[in-house]
Amino acid sequence: MAEKGNKRDENTIFIANKPFMNYVTGVVMQFTTKGAKEIVIKARGKFISRAIDVEEVVRKKFLKDQNIELKEIKVDSEEFTNKEGRKVNVSIIEITLSKK
Amino acid sequence: MAEKGNKRDENTIFIANKPFMNYVTGVVMQFTTKGAKEIVIKARGKFISRAIDVEEVVRKKFLKDQNIELKEIKVDSEEFTNKEGRKVNVSIIEITLSKK
Repeated sequence: MAEKGNKRDENTIFIANKPFMNYVTGVVMQFTTKGAKEIVIKARGKFISRAIDVEEVVRKKFLKDQNIELKEIKVDSEEFTNKEGRKVNVSIIEITLSKK
Repeated sequence: MAEKGNKRDENTIFIANKPFMNYVTGVVMQFTTKGAKEIVIKARGKFISRAIDVEEVVRKKFLKDQNIELKEIKVDSEEFTNKEGRKVNVSIIEITLSKK
């Protein structure tokens, strides 16, 4: 059960405010050295555009000869309570890349 | 030909830095008073997350009883030359909402 959880986490990359190339390298490594078949790139709010940047750079530059397919893009929104105690909605994205 | 062009433009909303509710109202109006069957919400770069915010608010709040379907999400990237003369890539998104 723990193993399964770990495995799933490894195949999910959450995009936030680390240097851009950290995320690109992370996704590339999962596909190349770790042999992943599928990677999910997730982001919330302002990091959503960054998640798409990562996906585009990985698929069209770094792994362009490796048949990486953009399998699915899901969007949704979540409600959370901010520091001022107000309920706010934030959009989320999940981009699934798959190695054919 | 010109009419066709205009019609297509009317059904496309480009998200940028106007007040958020302008875009929400724009999409809602197209579906309600203009009778559009399909609306494409487009954005580039940092405005991508905003495009998803607009889509979520329109579909889940303003028009939640109107059977608006999230038909398709496309992402891509474009190269352009910035002010410093360097070639830069920018991600783009196109979200198609459809009235059933």
